[in-house]
Amino acid sequence: MSNKNTPPLNIGVVGLGRAFTLMLPTFVHDSRVRLVAATDPIAAAQAQFGKDFSAPTHDSVEALCANPDVEAVYIASPHQFHAEHVCLAAAHGKHVLVEKPMALSLDECSRMIEAARSAGVHLIVGHSHSFNTPIKRTRQIIDSGTYGAVKMITALNFTDFLYRPRRPEELDTQAGGGVIHSQATHQIDIVRLLGGGLVRSVQAHTGAWDSARPTEGAYSALLGFESGAFASATYSGYGHYDSDELMGNIGEMGQAKNPQDYGAARKRLVNAASAEEESRLKAARNYGGSLYTGTPSLPAGLAHQHFGNIIVSCEKADLRPTPSGIEIYGDGQRSFEPLPPPAVPRSEVIDELYGAVFEGRDPLHSGAWARATTEVCLAILEAARSGSAQPMRHQVALGST
Amino acid sequence: MSNKNTPPLNIGVVGLGRAFTLMLPTFVHDSRVRLVAATDPIAAAQAQFGKDFSAPTHDSVEALCANPDVEAVYIASPHQFHAEHVCLAAAHGKHVLVEKPMALSLDECSRMIEAARSAGVHLIVGHSHSFNTPIKRTRQIIDSGTYGAVKMITALNFTDFLYRPRRPEELDTQAGGGVIHSQATHQIDIVRLLGGGLVRSVQAHTGAWDSARPTEGAYSALLGFESGAFASATYSGYGHYDSDELMGNIGEMGQAKNPQDYGAARKRLVNAASAEEESRLKAARNYGGSLYTGTPSLPAGLAHQHFGNIIVSCEKADLRPTPSGIEIYGDGQRSFEPLPPPAVPRSEVIDELYGAVFEGRDPLHSGAWARATTEVCLAILEAARSGSAQPMRHQVALGST
Ligand SMILES: NC(=O)c1ccc[n+]([C@@H]2O[C@H](COP(=O)([O-])OP(=O)(O)OC[C@H]3O[C@@H](n4cnc5c(N)ncnc54)[C@H](O)[C@@H]3O)[C@@H](O)[C@H]2O)c1
Ligand SMILES: NC(=O)c1ccc[n+]([C@@H]2O[C@H](COP(=O)([O-])OP(=O)(O)OC[C@H]3O[C@@H](n4cnc5c(N)ncnc54)[C@H](O)[C@@H]3O)[C@@H](O)[C@H]2O)c1
Repeated sequence: MSNKNTPPLNIGVVGLGRAFTLMLPTFVHDSRVRLVAATDPIAAAQAQFGKDFSAPTHDSVEALCANPDVEAVYIASPHQFHAEHVCLAAAHGKHVLVEKPMALSLDECSRMIEAARSAGVHLIVGHSHSFNTPIKRTRQIIDSGTYGAVKMITALNFTDFLYRPRRPEELDTQAGGGVIHSQATHQIDIVRLLGGGLVRSVQAHTGAWDSARPTEGAYSALLGFESGAFASATYSGYGHYDSDELMGNIGEMGQAKNPQDYGAARKRLVNAASAEEESRLKAARNYGGSLYTGTPSLPAGLAHQHFGNIIVSCEKADLRPTPSGIEIYGDGQRSFEPLPPPAVPRSEVIDELYGAVFEGRDPLHSGAWARATTEVCLAILEAARSGSAQPMRHQVALGST
Repeated sequence: MSNKNTPPLNIGVVGLGRAFTLMLPTFVHDSRVRLVAATDPIAAAQAQFGKDFSAPTHDSVEALCANPDVEAVYIASPHQFHAEHVCLAAAHGKHVLVEKPMALSLDECSRMIEAARSAGVHLIVGHSHSFNTPIKRTRQIIDSGTYGAVKMITALNFTDFLYRPRRPEELDTQAGGGVIHSQATHQIDIVRLLGGGLVRSVQAHTGAWDSARPTEGAYSALLGFESGAFASATYSGYGHYDSDELMGNIGEMGQAKNPQDYGAARKRLVNAASAEEESRLKAARNYGGSLYTGTPSLPAGLAHQHFGNIIVSCEKADLRPTPSGIEIYGDGQRSFEPLPPPAVPRSEVIDELYGAVFEGRDPLHSGAWARATTEVCLAILEAARSGSAQPMRHQVALGST
């Protein structure tokens, strides 16, 4: 997997929280990258990093970006800092991998794109679940032309998102909270990738049904593509029906799930009596936190990650990516194309980052691509508010740069 | 099941085709009804009826309606005749059970309602799958208030509808063909029933992807309710992915399905080289046709009928009707409320018809109710054409008359 002729890419980390904790197996086990520095306001996280990687930690994002050993910065701070942190990294000539969602407004997205362009650095937005190998393979099957054009996409995901421990701003839509900013990003990115990228119109309803957690926990959106294809994307984070049962009881991270754990998120949350306690509960499970269990060994028996059930209706077949391959429901027969299990989870992110920096390959998840996904997500909020279809202005086709 | 104090209701049948063939087990095995007359232009169907029921057949709908033995008329002629046949039956003072869709236009619906009203007869529109006991039971659970208000409904059905043998007009949208007129009626009727009835706006995309069968074979619609709840309803009749796998491999009619039969509809259709041959193929399997296998005995081992996967998201639980009961995904636990299997399939239709005529109970599936469902279905076509949300004018609440 590593390239013998090029050294690993040296990465500095901004934000050692949950997203970082989820990316850690990738950074540790993918030999194409190496963690060389980090910054986070939380001292325990910095201490853990220093210990685990014998690498410096910095007091500010600026200092980390100025570190000459850092070639690329992985930005996993809360949404509202993404724009500022990306611009800082670019100003220091560093390539950037920034977590989804790219930012909270299209203006921020455009500033980030311009900062990277003028600095001549690569900007990649991820991880998001549209990186998952089964999604990419589904796209390749579409591109083969065997089954004709994509006509309809049906995406559905029911999770317990809203009852996982949260920072206060994660429950405040204005501040970037709720499932549109955090979860539609995944689902819409997948739908755009499979639909070719160019969304023409967005119609939607959103729901905020729990006054104790007063942000959107659910939505249903209808997307029209320039091609005439259309998609419906439905999400609920209210912790009731769990659509992982449609994915063979494989969870979002590719792990086997025990259906007996029904309702676990809500039960755990009962212990958090205030917003502060809940923030602490979140931080405790993060890197270096009091419940953190140490740098993970390469997880065994993982399937591919997923983001719920996706059915791509082409003219001559329905395609359904699963954690272990692609179901193909053709005119005359049904078949299953198995995929080898992942060697390192989320290594697809490193494929794009490494490919861009060292192999001259244009990343799919570029700033322009991610801005287009952000546009659709923001349009879901606006469509739900206004009741009318939102036209799009920033869409880019798959494979254009 | 029959009422000892009242005689069975005497029914005359208009149209001895596929719908009648599907209702036949109900008419034969539900002792509350008796078939006493029929009319159909197809001589073989009339002959079979005369033989099976030792009852007269008539040369015209008018003659059947004039038969004094007929108390109620079951109208199962093609859509385009529903309005005319309902008005004839009402003019002769007969109660009416008319197949879905009620009609092809709202004007027709209004004429039918007025004809029944001024004649003082009951008008019930069905069978449709919103009669199914699991749907009714889900509505009762909602009404109990235990799980709070309905907030979101997610309905999905993937079938081989478009590849079942068809008459030419069934493949021509103007003439009533395609899945909006024939299948959305079921799905929207279910969604309206579970959402309380009052749809406020309809947004939709439709798809017609097979130029050999040039009518809508798929749609995805977003419905907003007056209550603020919303629903997404997605349907594909293109014979690829089969969502009966989400229903435990139980088919629409409640029968166990063999997943090995994948693609059967398309394979059978290959033998029909022309529209005439295809019409003949359809007729051959109907009542009295060359492939008809005789009046059915009471089917054993049936589960409840269904129309695809339905998830009703309430404030405190997601409810999912299945062919054998209701899955309840609550805040703290998941449970399953089993339902006894049906004694006679579709006897729920007779419950309403008999209840209206002999027990003074207002039917849920009244003309006004069905007109409201027709309004939503027609709005799906218009929303897809125009790209904009359609307002509603004829909606009625559940339980209003
Ligand atoms: N791709 C995924 O699967 C995934 C999963 C979780 C989160 N995320 C994304 O990652 C981002 C962070 O979310 P999270 O859940 O990890 O939150 P978190 O609170 O768990 O982690 C954020 C971390 O950033 C640190 N931080 C805050 N301000 C900072 C600053 N100015 N400079 C440096 N560090 C700072 C915090 O101390 C914390 O450790 C969000 O944008 C979120 O959408 C992505
Ligand atoms: N509820 C259900 O599950 C269901 C299933 C199938 C059809 N349907 C509905 O039933 C209706 C009929 O569809 P179908 O599939 O049975 O069609 P079909 O072609 O199988 O049957 C229609 C029958 O009506 C007869 N007919 C035609 N013109 C007539 C007339 N003027 N007077 C009397 N009879 C006449 C035809 O000869 C034929 O036997 C449609 O409205 C359809 O939507 C409902």
